[in-house]
Amino acid sequence: MEKFELIVLGCGSAKPTTRHFPSSQVLNVRDKLFMIDCGEGTQLQYCRNKLSFNRLNHVFISHLHGDHMFGLPGLISTFNLLGRTAELHVHSPKGLEQMLKPLMDYCNYDMSYQVFFHEFDTNEPTMIFEDRTLTVTTIPLKHRVPTCGFLFREKEGLRHIRRDMIDAYEIPVAYINNIKAGADFVLPNGEVIANDRLTTPASKTHSYAYCSDTLYNPQIVEQLCCVDLLYHEATYAAEHEAKAQQHFHSTTLQAAQIAKDAQVKQLVIGHFSARYLDESALLEEAMSVFPNTLLAQENLSILLDD
Amino acid sequence: MEKFELIVLGCGSAKPTTRHFPSSQVLNVRDKLFMIDCGEGTQLQYCRNKLSFNRLNHVFISHLHGDHMFGLPGLISTFNLLGRTAELHVHSPKGLEQMLKPLMDYCNYDMSYQVFFHEFDTNEPTMIFEDRTLTVTTIPLKHRVPTCGFLFREKEGLRHIRRDMIDAYEIPVAYINNIKAGADFVLPNGEVIANDRLTTPASKTHSYAYCSDTLYNPQIVEQLCCVDLLYHEATYAAEHEAKAQQHFHSTTLQAAQIAKDAQVKQLVIGHFSARYLDESALLEEAMSVFPNTLLAQENLSILLDD
Repeated sequence: MEKFELIVLGCGSAKPTTRHFPSSQVLNVRDKLFMIDCGEGTQLQYCRNKLSFNRLNHVFISHLHGDHMFGLPGLISTFNLLGRTAELHVHSPKGLEQMLKPLMDYCNYDMSYQVFFHEFDTNEPTMIFEDRTLTVTTIPLKHRVPTCGFLFREKEGLRHIRRDMIDAYEIPVAYINNIKAGADFVLPNGEVIANDRLTTPASKTHSYAYCSDTLYNPQIVEQLCCVDLLYHEATYAAEHEAKAQQHFHSTTLQAAQIAKDAQVKQLVIGHFSARYLDESALLEEAMSVFPNTLLAQENLSILLDD
Repeated sequence: MEKFELIVLGCGSAKPTTRHFPSSQVLNVRDKLFMIDCGEGTQLQYCRNKLSFNRLNHVFISHLHGDHMFGLPGLISTFNLLGRTAELHVHSPKGLEQMLKPLMDYCNYDMSYQVFFHEFDTNEPTMIFEDRTLTVTTIPLKHRVPTCGFLFREKEGLRHIRRDMIDAYEIPVAYINNIKAGADFVLPNGEVIANDRLTTPASKTHSYAYCSDTLYNPQIVEQLCCVDLLYHEATYAAEHEAKAQQHFHSTTLQAAQIAKDAQVKQLVIGHFSARYLDESALLEEAMSVFPNTLLAQENLSILLDD
């Protein structure tokens, strides 16, 4: 199974409450872990979810507000304490390295591993990460400071070999990779065996978009088109739309409208203001516009289907 | 009642676990709150214990290791978010302000209140705070970086007026403060009424000493003499004494020995290494040397008697 799973570590907003941790999530793509935002307490939540530190090499920070990044010094120090040797890559808007440097210089003067800061421009969608299986592209958002969401998109994988057919035609191992990539096979007698007789289609690819924090911004709809899963902040209830606008945040209805317009498959709302003791009312509002909506909560895991 | 209460917010050590938060405590002295250390997640624990942010004006940081101070950026930012206007005073060894400055400059460019950093020398016991009711004195400790514990000592209060005697002798209000301070009263006929007929003794004063992190250090015994409550780190079990020494920490037996030699009334041990899943064994070890020992745990409150 090609795993594609979102784990919510924290979905509160800046004001601390006893009900939420500040923003952090982990996306598990085929057992590589990608962290998105890193509020205070993230490393505790990470442990609580029994996630492996060894599988985490990339952290993506949406913007430089404390509730999205104050967990980084602790995380970086803990890795050092554990004797990590693998590089850690931290992607963020400009300014993070400068901001953390004196703290890191003092606390980790004898670092066992290297941290690389990659700072991105927040004006245009930009592919900031790519590996064999995945790309990560920024989603420019509108907030009080430079902010981007992130679009994680799995690459089309290789087709799956039909072992029975490979055996039947006695196809040598050396040809397998080409066949997985779509090549036909030519038998010694010249007969061409079409690829779709030797393989089944590649696994479904998945996509996940993270949008926090942002003013209601229909400009992102096109980029979000048809993603499998969208996390969109819904800091405020519909009745507090003016307050949402004032603080460059979104309401439940606005988050749901983005999901609807972008025709995403599923929506998760989060980044709840501390004022709402009962968040089920927020969920109901969002569902009135986009029924397939979930309420984020700490330790929630969403496993996307194959 | 003159309240003197210790509340433990976190008593783990640097490596994160799901069982503990890193170091932080609050001492409540007559409803003024004093924070001691501020590891990651402190503000969440503070809220969980329903402590008032308005009553906290002083934070004491023992040393500049992450598990004792990575909660500060979040705490300072939250106060700003809440529109705090009262000054906040942060007492620490040298270097903290320099370390936090770029983070604070970015995150709190429009601060609603002022933070004052007071950096102390860690070589000699020094009184670093004094108000009407209390003094705070540093306790030089031996750790890998400059480190001090803190001795909180209530000042002797005023004697309590005996209302019945004041009424019987018809003593005017203007004399009451002097009588509270110990003065006798002279009746119009020249008769002297001794103070101890007009008052009962002042309330008992309390003292609390916080010692984390430190190598076993008998030099502190004299300064700790006869305190009501001592928190001493016991990062390691007795069997790991060599490891304790190597990392400049103490064992259970060493913590208890300090308590015994200083003739303190009660000992609380904490700063437990993540390796010990069952801390009751640590408690048993300490109690074998100093029976009146408690195991620290999150949200533990110790109210000292009048």
